[in-house]
Amino acid sequence: MPAAVSDQASLAALDRAHYMHGYHLFDEHRQQDALQIGAGDGAYIQDLAGNRYLDAVGGMWCTNIGLGREEMVEAIAEQTRQLAYANPFCDMANPRAVELCAKLAELAPGDIDHVFLTTGGSTAVDTAIRLVHYYQNCRGLPHKKQILSRRHAYHGSTYLGMSLGGKQVDREGHFDFIQDGIHHLSGPYPYRAPAGLSEAEYLDSLVAEFEAKVLQLGAENVAAFIGEPVFGSGGVMVPPAGYHRRIWELCQRYDILFIADEVVTSFGRLGHFFASESVFGVQPDIITTAKGLTSGYQPLGACLFSERIWQVIAEPDQGRCFTHGFTYSGHPVACAAALKSIEIIQREGILQHVEEVGRYFEEQLKTLLDLPIVGDVRGLRFMACVEFVADKASKALFPEALNIGEWVHLRAQKRGLLVRPMVHLNVMSPPLILTREQVDFIVRVLRESILETLEDLKQAGHY
Amino acid sequence: MPAAVSDQASLAALDRAHYMHGYHLFDEHRQQDALQIGAGDGAYIQDLAGNRYLDAVGGMWCTNIGLGREEMVEAIAEQTRQLAYANPFCDMANPRAVELCAKLAELAPGDIDHVFLTTGGSTAVDTAIRLVHYYQNCRGLPHKKQILSRRHAYHGSTYLGMSLGGKQVDREGHFDFIQDGIHHLSGPYPYRAPAGLSEAEYLDSLVAEFEAKVLQLGAENVAAFIGEPVFGSGGVMVPPAGYHRRIWELCQRYDILFIADEVVTSFGRLGHFFASESVFGVQPDIITTAKGLTSGYQPLGACLFSERIWQVIAEPDQGRCFTHGFTYSGHPVACAAALKSIEIIQREGILQHVEEVGRYFEEQLKTLLDLPIVGDVRGLRFMACVEFVADKASKALFPEALNIGEWVHLRAQKRGLLVRPMVHLNVMSPPLILTREQVDFIVRVLRESILETLEDLKQAGHY
Repeated sequence: MPAAVSDQASLAALDRAHYMHGYHLFDEHRQQDALQIGAGDGAYIQDLAGNRYLDAVGGMWCTNIGLGREEMVEAIAEQTRQLAYANPFCDMANPRAVELCAKLAELAPGDIDHVFLTTGGSTAVDTAIRLVHYYQNCRGLPHKKQILSRRHAYHGSTYLGMSLGGKQVDREGHFDFIQDGIHHLSGPYPYRAPAGLSEAEYLDSLVAEFEAKVLQLGAENVAAFIGEPVFGSGGVMVPPAGYHRRIWELCQRYDILFIADEVVTSFGRLGHFFASESVFGVQPDIITTAKGLTSGYQPLGACLFSERIWQVIAEPDQGRCFTHGFTYSGHPVACAAALKSIEIIQREGILQHVEEVGRYFEEQLKTLLDLPIVGDVRGLRFMACVEFVADKASKALFPEALNIGEWVHLRAQKRGLLVRPMVHLNVMSPPLILTREQVDFIVRVLRESILETLEDLKQAGHY
Repeated sequence: MPAAVSDQASLAALDRAHYMHGYHLFDEHRQQDALQIGAGDGAYIQDLAGNRYLDAVGGMWCTNIGLGREEMVEAIAEQTRQLAYANPFCDMANPRAVELCAKLAELAPGDIDHVFLTTGGSTAVDTAIRLVHYYQNCRGLPHKKQILSRRHAYHGSTYLGMSLGGKQVDREGHFDFIQDGIHHLSGPYPYRAPAGLSEAEYLDSLVAEFEAKVLQLGAENVAAFIGEPVFGSGGVMVPPAGYHRRIWELCQRYDILFIADEVVTSFGRLGHFFASESVFGVQPDIITTAKGLTSGYQPLGACLFSERIWQVIAEPDQGRCFTHGFTYSGHPVACAAALKSIEIIQREGILQHVEEVGRYFEEQLKTLLDLPIVGDVRGLRFMACVEFVADKASKALFPEALNIGEWVHLRAQKRGLLVRPMVHLNVMSPPLILTREQVDFIVRVLRESILETLEDLKQAGHY
């Protein structure tokens, strides 16, 4: 591996001295060397010590077509050679950006025909909310600005995105958040629904809470709802059947824009290019995407929106201009990578593969439910999560400081499998090219790692 | 040019139907085909019709080493092949990200030794302000959060960045802005300083305004000042000599963090990797960068910060974690591009070249001051701007609707030169590899284009 800093100890020292990692405990970064990833091919990554892992995290929900594809290398190299950068502002454009926007409009549901290109999911969400402001102001409704979000939500890491988000771990630290105009409703969490409610009653309660909040704020003041079709880093909770449809119907009734944050769920993860309509039967007004858009090969995001919004904001002879955008909006190399990744997904039938092997993944993971500390196994196709509990009957959690997810993660890592530990959870979002054999490997290693964890917990007196 | 949509008319139709450009008048996009850029080499770009232009805009202040470098193609291709994506969160890292952070710490002034990698300038600024919040909260100073910015400032396009910004064109449309906690002071604009003030008196008045605002808010409530060393898209105003130093001294006195937004001014544009200390004699607490960081070859940004801040936020045994970050933070391909671009800047002596040819550019542009509608020619090295006036004595502007900058721009474009029109201005930020002959070409074409504009203005009865 040709690391310019080939000495691993030197690399670790430089890492510690200069590179602040997101979400890394400062104390841990000080005390332990980071896992330096040096190579990747298909669903596998390799560290600098030569250890090879099946990456069930899929990078960070993003390496959809798998790493190391020579066809991607060539598309990226060729575009870099031909035109590595183009000004995306005003009357300037480049063919790759245009082609990608046209392709996204073709793939997106219904009248989602317009695209604003960004640098990733965070800037896509930020753009979506700025678009909402712009739209309501153009309509002469400057008071209609309140945004409805949910607890457990993750909507990116800008100041605005984090303020929309509702993950406890993001909110309990030392950051500040926008206090006005954003409201967090309950996030659907069927496994931890109030005791005694049927799924239908739980759904009714969530819908009723939504409508009550709209009426409390006044529908004339509510601009938009933003939601992930399936929660991502909040814990892969799949809402009760019909949830999104009923929230969407309320949005229709009360003139509230429905923003589907599909940064994770788009580009095949749930078996479709976009999940909103295909999986959940809703027609969003705005869709945000990133990650699988380029399969992680290039930084890129997009905010897609409806013809109805376009008709309002782009009304002729108003002299209007959308004074917003990023230097790297429409970056030709990133757009070339997205076009090639989409082509590969289509040519190789990866969506159909997800429908088949993703279902198998769901089924096989469920077999872990017989283990005493596995409280819940949930997800959809290639989004998955195991929730650990100290007591299955009461669903009581282990102490947070124990960090049970990390125990399992470390034992899986020893066995050549990477899953993402998040306190009580192990989260998975593998590359979409996963084979049945690789599914079997993941489930077998998880079982072994959970059993080893169980023994170690007993030995340490925690269970 | 292998455009997948090779028919230019079809491309134009797709562009209009699906691709929303930032800062493009909706009406103009409807009525005129955009300029589709298909190729680039060195300081030149070429449209799909085969017209070749010297790109004095440098993409968007970013193509510092010039386009089409085979060495960049190879670095990007090789990293894509080896490891196209790596999870940047928690205890995971990749060698290219580590090496880049170490390199940035080496190049940045003084104790700016820590780096948070982002997806561009906007997310770098957003990260900087979130870092300020985190820092002040860790210090137990939750009330110390007010931010001082300036009119004419541009700090990116997130909701927060745009709220920090002070450009009239960004604020007069239909967007919303954060109302609380951000204060806009006068932006130094020597050409339009109040009549009768000497430069020293003008400087004193700016410094006095700053201090008065701090005292009005209470220094205990003021967290940070953010400023571009030289205004970028606000109009390339160079502050009076000593301005930044005196603002910085006040920041030191009142315990206010000094954030230098060097997204434009870093990586050689002013002849140094960073301008704050080398050109303006200040030691910022935080520096934001992007653009020239990869010379535009890849989307990437960074928020750099001081050891003093690090000591506070990363205090041992506090269990703290910086719960912030982007999927594409530390993207290995983007980091590989940055490392190669920096290597090229160093190996080819591009900083020294900017000192020489950039000075020549400044001098030669000043020769345009003899033209009757050229009110001001300003800038520093490879940041430059021509301001047009209807009357040199009174400095009266042409009517805004006339869009005088566009008149000159279109006439220069016919002659194979791209400059950036911004109402009364033509802005330039050429690739740093510009030769003296190319400087001569720019100045000659600008003179011809301004003279042609003048004739046309007279013919149309505007002058």
